[in-house]
This record gives sequence, C-alpha cells and structure tokens, in this order.
Amino acid sequence: MSKHLTKRAEDYSKWYNELIVKADLAETSAVRGCMVIKPYGFAIWEKMQAELDRMFKETGHQNAYFPLFVPKSLFEAEEKNAEGFAKECAVVTHYRLQSDPDKEGKLRVDPDAKLEEELVVRPTSEAIIWNTYKGWIQSHRDLPLLINQWANVVRWEMRTRLFLRTAEFLWQEGHTAHATKDEALFEAKQMQEVYATFAEEFMAMPVVRGAKSESERFAGADATYTIEALMQDGKALQAGTSHFLGQNFAKAFDVKYTSREGKQEYVWATSWGVSTRLIGGLIMTHSDDAGLVLPPKLAPIQVVIVPIYKGEDQLNAIYDKMSGLISEFKSRGISVKFDDRDTMRPGAKFAEYELKGVPVRVAIGNRDLENGTAEVARRDTFEKQTVQQDQLVEHITGLLEDIQENLYKKALDFRADHITEVNSFEEFKDVIENKGGFVSAHWDGTIETEDKIKELTKATIRCIPNDVEDEDGKCVLTGASSPRRVLFAKAY
Amino acid sequence: MSKHLTKRAEDYSKWYNELIVKADLAETSAVRGCMVIKPYGFAIWEKMQAELDRMFKETGHQNAYFPLFVPKSLFEAEEKNAEGFAKECAVVTHYRLQSDPDKEGKLRVDPDAKLEEELVVRPTSEAIIWNTYKGWIQSHRDLPLLINQWANVVRWEMRTRLFLRTAEFLWQEGHTAHATKDEALFEAKQMQEVYATFAEEFMAMPVVRGAKSESERFAGADATYTIEALMQDGKALQAGTSHFLGQNFAKAFDVKYTSREGKQEYVWATSWGVSTRLIGGLIMTHSDDAGLVLPPKLAPIQVVIVPIYKGEDQLNAIYDKMSGLISEFKSRGISVKFDDRDTMRPGAKFAEYELKGVPVRVAIGNRDLENGTAEVARRDTFEKQTVQQDQLVEHITGLLEDIQENLYKKALDFRADHITEVNSFEEFKDVIENKGGFVSAHWDGTIETEDKIKELTKATIRCIPNDVEDEDGKCVLTGASSPRRVLFAKAY
Repeated sequence: MSKHLTKRAEDYSKWYNELIVKADLAETSAVRGCMVIKPYGFAIWEKMQAELDRMFKETGHQNAYFPLFVPKSLFEAEEKNAEGFAKECAVVTHYRLQSDPDKEGKLRVDPDAKLEEELVVRPTSEAIIWNTYKGWIQSHRDLPLLINQWANVVRWEMRTRLFLRTAEFLWQEGHTAHATKDEALFEAKQMQEVYATFAEEFMAMPVVRGAKSESERFAGADATYTIEALMQDGKALQAGTSHFLGQNFAKAFDVKYTSREGKQEYVWATSWGVSTRLIGGLIMTHSDDAGLVLPPKLAPIQVVIVPIYKGEDQLNAIYDKMSGLISEFKSRGISVKFDDRDTMRPGAKFAEYELKGVPVRVAIGNRDLENGTAEVARRDTFEKQTVQQDQLVEHITGLLEDIQENLYKKALDFRADHITEVNSFEEFKDVIENKGGFVSAHWDGTIETEDKIKELTKATIRCIPNDVEDEDGKCVLTGASSPRRVLFAKAY
Repeated sequence: MSKHLTKRAEDYSKWYNELIVKADLAETSAVRGCMVIKPYGFAIWEKMQAELDRMFKETGHQNAYFPLFVPKSLFEAEEKNAEGFAKECAVVTHYRLQSDPDKEGKLRVDPDAKLEEELVVRPTSEAIIWNTYKGWIQSHRDLPLLINQWANVVRWEMRTRLFLRTAEFLWQEGHTAHATKDEALFEAKQMQEVYATFAEEFMAMPVVRGAKSESERFAGADATYTIEALMQDGKALQAGTSHFLGQNFAKAFDVKYTSREGKQEYVWATSWGVSTRLIGGLIMTHSDDAGLVLPPKLAPIQVVIVPIYKGEDQLNAIYDKMSGLISEFKSRGISVKFDDRDTMRPGAKFAEYELKGVPVRVAIGNRDLENGTAEVARRDTFEKQTVQQDQLVEHITGLLEDIQENLYKKALDFRADHITEVNSFEEFKDVIENKGGFVSAHWDGTIETEDKIKELTKATIRCIPNDVEDEDGKCVLTGASSPRRVLFAKAY
C-alpha cells in the first residue's frame, strides 16, 4: 500500500478506510464482514473500556458474563425483539465436523451432529439474560439489579465498514431490572448521560442527547435514548443508546417480584450499549489529511520523543538527558515512548506519529543538548515550540490538557455551524444535499412522513433533543401541525 | 436451595457444585454446557485478568482482537490442529431466521440463507490468527510478533462442569511469531513461568512446571509446557499451558520472513492460554466445608465490617468510628465493605461472608465502641482477635499478607504430602486408588504404556517435571528402561 493518504475532500470514505489500515488500527479479515482489531486500535478500545467501566461501577453496576448462544426458543420469546434481529443473525446448527478428512482434505460437517434446537449467536443479550433474571428476582429486595457485560456480538449485516458496522463487534451491554417504571426511566436516562459525558470529556466528541422516534427505536423498547455525534463530512453517527424496555421482557420471560405490599408485579427493565463503533466516531471527529488525531485522554501513546542523532554516543547523550524526564512523565500517568529505532530517519518517524495521531512529539538533537532545550510539536495544530528541558514535563502536562480542550472546542464549533433550522422542504433538501449536518425541522409526528422524507432525501430523524423547546410549527413535508422541532440528518 | 453445604468428605463433587451456586459465583444456563458467571465470580476473573494482563504487558505483549469465526477452509489448514478440535466445534451454517413466525410463533431458519462456507466458532484461534499474520510478517524487522487476545471460545464438550469444563469459556490466548527456534522456545517457557508465578503468588496455588508427553500435547504443537496443580481431593488440574508450535502453522499458512541475510525462512511460533478454569482450581485449592476461601490478592472484598447494633443511633455511632478507617483501607488499595443491611442478623452475615470467602471480617458492637476495640476474624483459620481500633488498619494490612502466605504454605504442605515415589505397579495402583495425588514413577516412554496405565488406573501422565533429575530406572508397568521419573495422577 502506498504511503500517500487520500485527502478527505477527494473521497471521505476512502480516506477513512485508508487511514484505519495505514495507522494500524484494524483491517478486514478472512471472515465476511468481520475485522481484526490490531494492537494500536485495540489499545484505544482498552482505554475506552477502562473509563467506561469505571463510570459504570461508580453508578453501582457490576460486571457478569452470559452465554454467547441463545437457544432459538428463547430468542423468539419477545416478539418485537426477535423480529428485529431475526434477519441478521448467525445460526449454529451442528456441533461437530467429521474428523477424518475426505480425499480433498476437507472436513465435512457431521450430519449426525445436528443440534435438536438451533442456537442463535447473540446479536444482543436481552433474551438469554432475562431468562436468567427470572431465577434471580423474587422479592423487591433483589431489586434493582444492575449488571453490565463486556462481550462480542454478531449481526449479519450486508454492508459492512471497519468499526462502524461489522458482522462481529465488541461492546458492552447493560441490563437492569427495577421495581418501578420511574426507577427504570431514571436509569435509562442516567446511562444516556454517562455515555454523553464519556463522549464529550474523553473522546472530545460533542453529542446531542435525545430520544429516538418510534421507527428508530430498539426492537423491543418503549423508548430509546441516544447520543448523536456529527462527523466531519456532515453525516451523523449514533454513538450510544440506552433503552427503556418497559415490562416487555419481564412479561415475555415471566419475571415478577413480590412488592413490599406482598403483591406480585412484573419488573421494569433497561438496556444500554456502546461498541467499537465509537472508534469510528473518534476517527471521523478529529482526524485530518495527515492522519489520525487522538484526544490525549484516549491516546495509547501521549508523548513520543524522537532523538536526532549521529552515532551511538549522541544517542546515549540524548537518552541520558531524557531518561529522568521519561520517569517523571510516567509518574504523572503520562504514557511516553522514546523512539530510538535506527532503521528510520527522523522525518519518517515524524510522519509516522502524525499518521498515528500521537498528541505531542518531542524532538531533541545535538544543538538542543547544548542549549538545554527540546522542540515540542502538537499534533492538532502542528504548532512547534522550543522549550527548556527543565520545563518540559510541566509544559507538556499543560499542553495535553490544551489539546484535549481544543479538540472538543473545534468539534463543538463545527457542530454549531452544522445545525441548521429550516422551515420549508426546499430548504430542508438544500441543506441536506449541499451543506450536511443536522437539520432542525418541524415534523408532523407520523411514521409515514418520516419514511417519505427518508425516501426523498436519505435523511432520518436522529432524535428529538432532550433540551428542545416547545414551538408550534408546521411539518416541513406535510404542513400539518407540529409541537416542536426534531433533528434530521443523513447518518452512518 | 437449602443453606446447608455438603461436606467435602461426603461428596467432593457435590460440595464443589453447591459451593459455586451458594457463593454466587456461577450457575448453569439454558444453553447446554454453558454457564452464567455471576457478578461475584466475575469479579474474581476481573482480578485475575488485571494481574495477568499486567504480566503479559511487562513481558512485551500487546492485546488485539481476531474474529470469533473461522472459515472451515482455514480451520482445516493445519491438519493435526483441525483433527484435534473437529469433534467438538460449534458450526454456523446459516445467517438468517425467517422473521415472520409460523402458526406456533416459531421463527424457522431461513433455508435461503445458507452460508457458502461453514464457519467454525473458534475453539482456539491459531488458524484465523496465522492466516492474518501472513499479511503482517515480511521481514525479520516484523519479528518477534508478541500478541495476546482476551476472548471467548467454544468447545462442544459432552461432559461439562462449572468453570472446569464448559462448552463456552473465557480465556486469553497468546500467539507469537519468532525468527528462530530458540527464541520461540524461550518464549514458550517464559510464559509457562509467568503462569506459574501468577498461580503461586496470586492464587496461592503451588504448581509443578513440566512438559506434556506426546499424547497429551496440544493438537498442532511440537511441545506443550504445563503448570499442574493439585486439588484437595487428590486430583490434578492442568491450570495453564504454553505451546511451542515449531513451524507447523507457519507452513500451513505459508508465513515466511526475509532474514538479515536475505533468505526466505518460515517463522517459529508459540501459543499459550489460561482460562476461567483457574477459578475452579482456586476453589478446589483452598475452600472448606464452611464455603469459599479466597486468597486476599484475588478477593473482590478483602475486608468486611459488620456492625452489631440496636437501632439507628448505635449504627450511626459505629459508622462514624469506622468511616475514617474505611477511607484509610481504600487509600491502601484494600477493598472494604461496610454491611449495614438491616434485613439480616449479624450471625447470618457472618455465615454469608464465610461462604463467600471474604478473608477478614471485622465485627464491632456497643461494648467495642466503649473500649475502642473491634473483633477481627480471619477466614482461613477462623481465629478471632480483639484489636484496638487505632491499630486496625495496620493490623489487617499485615493479616492479609499472612493469610496469603498461609494459604500458599498450606497448599504446598498438602502437595508435598501427596507426591509419592513408587517403584512397582502394585504401589502405583494403591497410591492412585487410595491416597491420590501425584505419583512419581518410571515410564518407558511409549504411548502404548501410557494408554495401558490410563486404562488400568485412570491416571495420566501430568508432566515430565522441568526440574526432574536423570535417574536410571525401570518402567512400573513394563519394566523397560527409563531415564527419569514422570508425574502421574488422576486429573480433572
């Protein structure tokens, strides 16, 4: 593959795919629609996991693990959920290959090892989990039940894209049970806010908090709360969802509890998830034509030191100067790499770290040694500065905070420029086609209108924002009355 | 389920299963052979993962993620490996259910959605990973490649047991590629030592380090290094294995590199794994008739404080005294729980924490408040001691170390008592049948003898210990000459 990275303006989609491969984040695999997450990409996921896991535990959740497979009879139990996922699920039908290969060295599936009941590879775990919860919940004292699972799931999507939509993906799925409707609603909204906080504070990715329209809800949910981000190409990305499931699963799996008053009641449920899709969102929020741009809080390497030297002696002299600083960085929890590879010139290293989005690069050569200085470059703005070595740790600690803030601010400004209020369908189409971003428009509240708009423009209702104000208006398509604006966009 | 826990002497196997369920570690699921790992059990796994992951990274490994599915044509590529796992693998044949239910509400598998090539749910990932490594390795500069994956795998075992043998289990699998045979051998042995260190220092479970006989090797390996632990019932447990794979997978997947000298060479490989089976080993190494006994380094709750009070005022007074200590524990990284549930008497709480293996219990009542004391009980020996409150944190910090050491020493003494040298087959049978444990015996080195001994006694060769000394002897079964003793045992 050539070193050249396609420019975003040339072909955004091509840029995205090339960047992922060139920056060593992931690649396609021999399995249709499944990806290999390479170490550098996985290190970002590990950082995301660590923060999210901490936030889940702080809000009282515990981790557990449920089976990968869902027996078909359980899968069917909640009808809407089953119908929603039936069309895209991998099904295990046999439990053995014949171990003696045929003449061509092939191992055939053993026809005698057909399962009595097929197993669905979990596309989501409500069914297997609610079947389990039935045994865990008897009394109001067993509630709330606040559980999360980190797992792989499989959805046999026809059109896949690295990170954004893959047949297998990694995610977490929270599944909670509550005594009352209010508690479950509170939980679903709380987890939406946890996701929004994570997106904004760690990913530096602003999100709109809102509710999905009925046709965009999770199959089996009474309400779906979403966080919607805006990518650089003007398309929206659903970055995380939290579902209020009502009593749908409790009824499907007959999960009741004895209330304080001694009555048998169905429990109330939520589920919520974010996935490796977030990495796609991270890439498309910040990166540029030189490569990846990572917010310091999620960067596997936050600072790279590139020595510029001729011969071992100079290299050793530079390392001697830097080794104390490296320890100081580490004691502050800042990850730092000293790149002493002798197989690559400094310029090539600079390009590599730009491609990989390392937030801060320090270059130090012979003249710097004499002057007690180093050259510090930030990835987000490419600005360079000469800094005294004894101020380096302090300076870079502050710089990492600046970069984190700057990335968020830049993305927030971009989004502010790309939320457009429109009051006619002509305007609607014009903005969707030519400018992109979110369109804030009145809608008559019907699925028919939503479908028609999608058909005409490819834009969908991303959400009814949480903070939207009531405003009487007329639907942009039908002119029927509308109590508030909703956000439309083309989406990933 | 009754509160009574079966005694080990009555029925060890029943005790084991009951303990797992009563202590809230895991339970069977609706999927044949698959378990649900409950939050308390999963918290132990998380602690294991954290330590192992740290040790892997310290030895230069990075995490990545590869697909769950292995296309059958790749699965077949390394013949021995394929034959070894073909008989127990789950196979995906279809990618869709029909989303319109039939009259009985059933969703049938859609016959039009048959995969062109079946997908094997990974029983281990060598095939999919080596197919990927082919693209990653060109030059000696790409080596060594040191990668680990945390994942779920599926082996369709006919007889399953919670933690010890389940159809789906969680594990980590390391897969490394090296330029030379020596480097790969070093890596395989290094990871065996990492596992042994983890078992001994964290699980307080002594292990024998050794090599597997040919018939007990991993399918596709040239050598398998193992750590073998001894359970309380005298059976051995294979707790972790590290495989030297030679060039078998490199040849099957055509993975070559250009050496410094410009020659094309096949690379050398290792793979190594430990799984949730370790939790089974942990249980069977330390626990007793009162329940679980956990080594402090892996206990999700290390210290529990049980207030003994009448009414809110006394509870508040106790909490006020303890809250400072709780913060002190936390700042030392000691996990502590203050159990103020008013739905349970102190005695019932004591029994619950004994069942759950919490290493240290602190009880504090009204008289303690007056005297400035607390009662400290350790789980391993049931010893109780009155301790001044101002010495509590210091005392318990030391106590946790003592308990960790004591558990290891006790297990080590037990093992020392259960390694028996025998020099005749009569003795061999007698020890295996009546005493249990490891039997150190001469063996003529043939698979036939190994099989015959297994048939007659159910004992298998657990390993040829790393530290075994050369000693001329005669095989206990055939009398043929033998250069050294090997360890036999009945095993899980």
